[in-house]
Amino acid sequence: MRKFGIIGLGNVGRTVAYTLVTKGIADSLVLIDKDQKKARAEQLDLQDAQARLNTTTQVTIQDYDNLKDVDILYISAGDISISTNGGDRFDEFKFTAAVVKEIAPKIVASGFKGFIIDIMNPCDAVTSYLQKLTGFSKQRVFGTGTFLDTARMQRVVGEKLNVNPRSVEGYVLGEHGNTQFVAWSSVRVQGEAIQDLPEAKNFDFDKLADEAKQGAWEVASGKGFTSDAIATCGVSLGQAVLSDARLVCPVSGYSKKYDTYVGLPAIVGKNGIESVVDLPLTDEETKKFASSAQMIHDNVAKLG
Amino acid sequence: MRKFGIIGLGNVGRTVAYTLVTKGIADSLVLIDKDQKKARAEQLDLQDAQARLNTTTQVTIQDYDNLKDVDILYISAGDISISTNGGDRFDEFKFTAAVVKEIAPKIVASGFKGFIIDIMNPCDAVTSYLQKLTGFSKQRVFGTGTFLDTARMQRVVGEKLNVNPRSVEGYVLGEHGNTQFVAWSSVRVQGEAIQDLPEAKNFDFDKLADEAKQGAWEVASGKGFTSDAIATCGVSLGQAVLSDARLVCPVSGYSKKYDTYVGLPAIVGKNGIESVVDLPLTDEETKKFASSAQMIHDNVAKLG
Amino acid sequence: MRKFGIIGLGNVGRTVAYTLVTKGIADSLVLIDKDQKKARAEQLDLQDAQARLNTTTQVTIQDYDNLKDVDILYISAGDISISTNGGDRFDEFKFTAAVVKEIAPKIVASGFKGFIIDIMNPCDAVTSYLQKLTGFSKQRVFGTGTFLDTARMQRVVGEKLNVNPRSVEGYVLGEHGNTQFVAWSSVRVQGEAIQDLPEAKNFDFDKLADEAKQGAWEVASGKGFTSDAIATCGVSLGQAVLSDARLVCPVSGYSKKYDTYVGLPAIVGKNGIESVVDLPLTDEETKKFASSAQMIHDNVAKLG
Amino acid sequence: MRKFGIIGLGNVGRTVAYTLVTKGIADSLVLIDKDQKKARAEQLDLQDAQARLNTTTQVTIQDYDNLKDVDILYISAGDISISTNGGDRFDEFKFTAAVVKEIAPKIVASGFKGFIIDIMNPCDAVTSYLQKLTGFSKQRVFGTGTFLDTARMQRVVGEKLNVNPRSVEGYVLGEHGNTQFVAWSSVRVQGEAIQDLPEAKNFDFDKLADEAKQGAWEVASGKGFTSDAIATCGVSLGQAVLSDARLVCPVSGYSKKYDTYVGLPAIVGKNGIESVVDLPLTDEETKKFASSAQMIHDNVAKLG
Repeated sequence: MRKFGIIGLGNVGRTVAYTLVTKGIADSLVLIDKDQKKARAEQLDLQDAQARLNTTTQVTIQDYDNLKDVDILYISAGDISISTNGGDRFDEFKFTAAVVKEIAPKIVASGFKGFIIDIMNPCDAVTSYLQKLTGFSKQRVFGTGTFLDTARMQRVVGEKLNVNPRSVEGYVLGEHGNTQFVAWSSVRVQGEAIQDLPEAKNFDFDKLADEAKQGAWEVASGKGFTSDAIATCGVSLGQAVLSDARLVCPVSGYSKKYDTYVGLPAIVGKNGIESVVDLPLTDEETKKFASSAQMIHDNVAKLG
Repeated sequence: MRKFGIIGLGNVGRTVAYTLVTKGIADSLVLIDKDQKKARAEQLDLQDAQARLNTTTQVTIQDYDNLKDVDILYISAGDISISTNGGDRFDEFKFTAAVVKEIAPKIVASGFKGFIIDIMNPCDAVTSYLQKLTGFSKQRVFGTGTFLDTARMQRVVGEKLNVNPRSVEGYVLGEHGNTQFVAWSSVRVQGEAIQDLPEAKNFDFDKLADEAKQGAWEVASGKGFTSDAIATCGVSLGQAVLSDARLVCPVSGYSKKYDTYVGLPAIVGKNGIESVVDLPLTDEETKKFASSAQMIHDNVAKLG
Repeated sequence: MRKFGIIGLGNVGRTVAYTLVTKGIADSLVLIDKDQKKARAEQLDLQDAQARLNTTTQVTIQDYDNLKDVDILYISAGDISISTNGGDRFDEFKFTAAVVKEIAPKIVASGFKGFIIDIMNPCDAVTSYLQKLTGFSKQRVFGTGTFLDTARMQRVVGEKLNVNPRSVEGYVLGEHGNTQFVAWSSVRVQGEAIQDLPEAKNFDFDKLADEAKQGAWEVASGKGFTSDAIATCGVSLGQAVLSDARLVCPVSGYSKKYDTYVGLPAIVGKNGIESVVDLPLTDEETKKFASSAQMIHDNVAKLG
Repeated sequence: MRKFGIIGLGNVGRTVAYTLVTKGIADSLVLIDKDQKKARAEQLDLQDAQARLNTTTQVTIQDYDNLKDVDILYISAGDISISTNGGDRFDEFKFTAAVVKEIAPKIVASGFKGFIIDIMNPCDAVTSYLQKLTGFSKQRVFGTGTFLDTARMQRVVGEKLNVNPRSVEGYVLGEHGNTQFVAWSSVRVQGEAIQDLPEAKNFDFDKLADEAKQGAWEVASGKGFTSDAIATCGVSLGQAVLSDARLVCPVSGYSKKYDTYVGLPAIVGKNGIESVVDLPLTDEETKKFASSAQMIHDNVAKLG
């Protein structure tokens, strides 16, 4: 039986829940929100949908004890409106760190033995803090990180070269935030390094990277939040753990070298983060990664 | 190629769009909203998701001309916040009638030849008005009507008898609004009329019907809108038309007898509403239906 | 994690396996067949498919020990070619009873704690024997029984009345075999008993029932086996258990009154057969059911 | 409306049909087989399944005229048993060329305007012949080619490096047959060329390539045919055309340089083969490709 939990039923949490139910992925789903009425509303709405689906998901709410045998727990209790105006996800840190402080002990107390996928912002910093406060192993706690930013890069590059984003390989690394960067040395399209493609010889790669990064804010400011792509990413990661997929994905995982969570490629399987992938980077990319990781590390350190 | 359109990208329209993309149902999707930034944001968010899906949907925005070869067009440009407080969907009529007045000529001008599924409120009245203003045949224009209310009744009855809502048969008829009623004579569980079930002999059926009806408001007030179940219903109806499913569903369809759209059982297939089903009702149910239909009719008439 | 097992990789077992993998339903799947090469071939073919899917299923083979933590185990080790010519599924009994004799102790020895869904023929008799030889509770062992025959009846009635089979309610009961019967008193279309429908007043119900029954043989003789519908039925039942769906389905379940497995409506949920539904039948239907059940009972008794 | 056709209902054709129905991909499906009873059996089996699905597909049979408005037509009328023993798909050419001779004029006569995806063997040669005899543009006719062999290579490499096959990039090129080769220079795992991976430094790449190639025969001899992976590949390609996915896939497409169909990377979109991708290859790979293409060309030429 596949059992999922979601803490935080804003637009992201709700969309994750809807995806798990409408695609028949979850057999059981525990929803938790600080707003009791919202949790009950979401439960009812998901239950009402099930008369028109071909699969069933048991939806229960507001019970931390019920997390005990949850396999995959999403944390999506952030508030994007805090950061949308300033354009820096770190503006949410005070808010989300307080959330972590409140929920971490409750998760631990439930006897939860599964995996936590954090979707709050600033993703890497909050995931670090969440891992620390729960004391769970670094394999069992990770964040969506640059999995989403990578999807955005794939979309931007795909549009530019007129191919499907799924035909674009490569990684966005570092912070799920402003210091992220596209590791262009890893980006390949149609079996060739993008930097060697004749079609790409006049590309302004910095501009492309910026377009991918700014996409997030165009979505957030245009509709008030982001939901579709982030929920899709989160659900994929949860499925990868449950089915021991050993998929190579950029996620927010723990880097020993920099002693922080940061967007890096990892193998995701039945133990959560099975291992971190040692991607060959250019010197410039390595510097960008170091600087991005350091920034996250320092900000987490400030929390004390 | 399956081509869908959505006018109105609030929580319902967005969830319909996400469902069509995330389940690989739509090959092409046209999104239209009065807010250009919102439409663009939704387009980007859906495109970003596709690097993580296994199917592709072309998402274009803001172009009425592009509706020309759309098969299924959802109209979801209502504003539930208008009616949530008062608890009467008719409070939205002024707003949604104005929407219809604005968009109907544009839809017609596009050369649209497909089917319209209306999800705005008050569903039956607005669908009547939409059919009138577009001049499209009454088969090609219909509303989700009591398809959703029926799902809610199935949920409530299922919970009460501890069976899956899909194992509950029957219809909620009349207005998708306060004058709706459960046709209890049509409700069957486990192969038996609910009214004959020993387990149901002490049921307060009026209370049950009310619980189903109030579920809508519990969702709307709890999370500010309803989305999951209504989107699921809308998508099912669109799929039924595309695949010529000839499914018997309660929808908002045109009743000749009462000269109005109203929630009634119909066969949904490649021509939209293939035919209205002549359901045997008790005298009391017939009266309720007549009164509900009359109310809708009169309210539409007032529009002139 | 959802873990399934399949014993017997003929056309039915293979199609169940393919469905579980291609729809992303199974996280883990154990395949067992008396033919080692066939099992390995099926494993490879399913693994090769996964590079083109968006989900992952771990496929292991030929290891009874691995059934220990399987949730749902399908038994599909029959040989339809034995019965196709004679048109009587009981012709397979000698063969499938021997299969049960061989595999039951191995399943028990594995420490299997899940649910068995039997798809072999003669379904009711073999399921009885399987339950007896495993000693598992009667809730945990059941067969697809008349779930498939009911789908065939829905297809035949749907075609006749030009509506979707999903819009046809009702049950085929008794043996998944020649003594089965359509409980016409339970069959409803468009909210009305079929026997009251004006369109149906000249229907030859015996002929319709026969058409549904003979459909099985038309498929089996035409393509040498049946696969699509039976696999779909089997998978639905497994999903109902995993998600505690409490769906009302006609399955081959144990009837206390007749001390045998036989096609009857039951609630399927997390305990397997949660309860048998006491469907109101006409006197004639009750007699048919008794006679069909008695026949199964007697044939199982002969096995000793 | 998505309309598919399948000519040839052996194990591959049947599995394609089942996939299109069970995943709700096809709204309409035309099945054609030289064996009338088999076609009818498959139709019935697919229809019987639909009472247990949540989607509908209209299944019609044996009518070439009905191909007129089919979007995607699969040709799967080969007979793998001819080639399984000898281990050379070219052994089937006499048989499948005769099939093409018979069906090509009928397809043309139907007024078919869609896309043909050929799954028969020897795939490249038969696709060449099919294109020639139908006279359809080379964009509209293509074969599954090495799309399947590439999936097998991804599986083999994934197993070897203990990562998901989807995390393995690269191409198998040339004949979908014995002269195929893995373009190892294109194969990448975890963001790095496989040939640079420390874990791979002792790999016997020829042996790995052979393992991927022989996988086909292990499946075919073990279960008598291959079905799951090839059907999955075929369906993916059809979906890519319908949704204008512009996916980069190795398929059997027309090479101007070698004047033959051969397995090469192409962009698949709404015009079928949108363009062939000019993959950078090593000299040795280029030679292998030339030699494989020449062999196909010569064999087709012999047909006259």
